[in-house]
Amino acid sequence: MPNIRLTIEYDGTAYSGWQRQASVPTVQGAIESAIARIGQEAVAVNGAGRTDAGVHALAQVANFHTHRALDPSAWQRALNAVLPDDIAVVAAERADESFHARFSARGKQYRYTVMNRPFPSPLWQRFSWHIARPLHAPRMRRAAAGLIGVHDFRAFRAADPSHRPTDHTTCRLTQCTIRQSGDLITFELTSDRFLKYMVRTIVGTLIEVGLGARGPDEVALILEGQDRRQAGRTAPPHGLTLVAVEYATRTGGR
Amino acid sequence: MPNIRLTIEYDGTAYSGWQRQASVPTVQGAIESAIARIGQEAVAVNGAGRTDAGVHALAQVANFHTHRALDPSAWQRALNAVLPDDIAVVAAERADESFHARFSARGKQYRYTVMNRPFPSPLWQRFSWHIARPLHAPRMRRAAAGLIGVHDFRAFRAADPSHRPTDHTTCRLTQCTIRQSGDLITFELTSDRFLKYMVRTIVGTLIEVGLGARGPDEVALILEGQDRRQAGRTAPPHGLTLVAVEYATRTGGR
Repeated sequence: MPNIRLTIEYDGTAYSGWQRQASVPTVQGAIESAIARIGQEAVAVNGAGRTDAGVHALAQVANFHTHRALDPSAWQRALNAVLPDDIAVVAAERADESFHARFSARGKQYRYTVMNRPFPSPLWQRFSWHIARPLHAPRMRRAAAGLIGVHDFRAFRAADPSHRPTDHTTCRLTQCTIRQSGDLITFELTSDRFLKYMVRTIVGTLIEVGLGARGPDEVALILEGQDRRQAGRTAPPHGLTLVAVEYATRTGGR
Repeated sequence: MPNIRLTIEYDGTAYSGWQRQASVPTVQGAIESAIARIGQEAVAVNGAGRTDAGVHALAQVANFHTHRALDPSAWQRALNAVLPDDIAVVAAERADESFHARFSARGKQYRYTVMNRPFPSPLWQRFSWHIARPLHAPRMRRAAAGLIGVHDFRAFRAADPSHRPTDHTTCRLTQCTIRQSGDLITFELTSDRFLKYMVRTIVGTLIEVGLGARGPDEVALILEGQDRRQAGRTAPPHGLTLVAVEYATRTGGR
């Protein structure tokens, strides 16, 4: 049965996140509905990253198995004709039978955008978190350096009573780059995996460092302490974009 | 009476353009209402460019005279507290008594953004015109070169039966730069003045050149012919942003 891999861009503003839910609009739900309409068959779409409500994507990756003998470019055209304006399939290709967007992923890259000036930006409001007081980027960079490497990141995970101490919370964070361009500050994080709210909690904590409320060296100590209560606030979702998903091997079959 | 100069950023999506109108939301109307609410006085705000419905601004300039003894930074803070999220005052300063945002302007710069790929972009949809077929940027650049200089631009003005042959339609176009970055193509135009729909009609005509529907040399001939019917279609407003307004002398009084 053909396995189709999709690369998907979306403005997450109107969605309750990626993952299908019964009575609210989600990106996965919109894509599954579009596939059902085109292919006249119910399929389950696997997404690489289960982005939260309000989070965007430049290149989310997903896959689905289908009985239909449509080639990938026909799927792409048909999906883009049916999907709402805030979701687009930017690439479609035939993948190996075993390819699974989530389980085959070797890493993901997220970007978080902050607008740092006294008043918010109308042109950036959908895609950035507004911080009015000046941030000190070099301090944040020093703090971010302490996060790089293989660590247990449970201190930066969503607070959730259902979490258990035996959960797998080790991640290999290979990038946490902070760039400043005018009033815009972007954080780019790459890791083999991300825990729920991990990017947003890291950014929220780094922002506290950038504002001077915490020392740069505190961040490595928070990581070590493995206690969510020591980390900063979770940054809001609308500043976050899933930028890329990495796979080890080629997945295209054509 | 103090003369306050404002620099204003806005997302024009929700507005029927800059200019005040009786029963529809406009940017000028929103700013005048905000000033009236703060200063408890009715004022008229002069804008440098009367942007059309749906057009955005990074740095529109406006001014108003007020009896209130509020300093510019207090005006800025108060206006940003009162204005809707899609309008922001990014700078406020005291201007010379004679400063008038429109009449004192020596030039303006507009940017037009095109998303050139087979399917639209969710993240750029508010701020770009989607052109599905591939555009040839070097052809468009060759055509644009024929527009630079002092010319009668009436061929690129809005079709309007109330126009008269004696209207002043000469402009000094000093820049028409076309940049390509991935799927995004931007047009930057600078002129001492712009006629109604001029940027959008130039861009619409250049797009026809980029698609191969017209030769690059046709554009200079259209200019020379001074006949709107020879030019291309008017590009849609949502791709257009007023980027800068230039003034000859310093206007700040503090």
